[in-house]
Amino acid sequence: MTHDASTSAQDRKFLLRAVELSRERMEQGLGGPFGAVLVRDGEIIAEGWNEVTSSLDPTAHAEVTAIRRACQAVGDFALQGATLYSSCEPCPMCLAATYWARIGRLVYANTRGQAAAIGFDDEFLYGEIPKDPAERSLPTQHMPLPEAERVFDLWRDKPDKIAY
Amino acid sequence: MTHDASTSAQDRKFLLRAVELSRERMEQGLGGPFGAVLVRDGEIIAEGWNEVTSSLDPTAHAEVTAIRRACQAVGDFALQGATLYSSCEPCPMCLAATYWARIGRLVYANTRGQAAAIGFDDEFLYGEIPKDPAERSLPTQHMPLPEAERVFDLWRDKPDKIAY
Repeated sequence: MTHDASTSAQDRKFLLRAVELSRERMEQGLGGPFGAVLVRDGEIIAEGWNEVTSSLDPTAHAEVTAIRRACQAVGDFALQGATLYSSCEPCPMCLAATYWARIGRLVYANTRGQAAAIGFDDEFLYGEIPKDPAERSLPTQHMPLPEAERVFDLWRDKPDKIAY
Repeated sequence: MTHDASTSAQDRKFLLRAVELSRERMEQGLGGPFGAVLVRDGEIIAEGWNEVTSSLDPTAHAEVTAIRRACQAVGDFALQGATLYSSCEPCPMCLAATYWARIGRLVYANTRGQAAAIGFDDEFLYGEIPKDPAERSLPTQHMPLPEAERVFDLWRDKPDKIAY
């Protein structure tokens, strides 16, 4: 088997595990039909599934949950070199979380359009995020405060800060 | 005082509390210089601050943390009628979380540009999210799977699902 064929077979294996989680956890009534797996060096370091309604946490999407668990498992707030397998294209929250976690690669199955077709807001949110704040459906007010600017100056000059 | 002036004074009070949190928690070494407060019916229902480096959780931004705490406090996965006060314009992860939590209004002080000036990726991420997945800096692969489509069909037809 060539390297590419081997990578593709491995991708398929881990993506099918994410899909299996999406189905099992949904059938258990834990949340929406979404699963995710984080893999590094060929090993699963964490699994996640949607827990929004069962854990009363609107941020508990499959990918965010997998990222949180993986970071606890490896004892780091970053996951360089990891690949995220998700049963569906991540929503903007989960996609941004993927970047913040410094994940190296993303593989997904269903799309935001397919998610929209069964009632989820992913596609709508992809439309909202790039808008000027004043143009979004969420009423938004920018209230500049010198006190807030001062805190950013303090961070800039903080000698012992931990960058992330 | 007119209603608008009263609203503005209240906004300023809660936003200053978010800024205070951003400073105090940063000085305590808990994470970056960001704070957030969630308010409903004139009362604070939860406060949050950046805990990325102290809790080893790249999703533990101030707004996400405040949303999680507020949902636990009120026993619901949605926060209709709440206002989110953030010391800085939310990053795309936190903005999408604000929508998923059904928060009614957003008020912020510093901007994504000011965050970029002290080393944060918010502005970069606002540029990445709208791109076609193949054009992003995050290597991304779409691998459609009939097994994944089947799970969405099962959700669509699930009689006892809890929408969110």
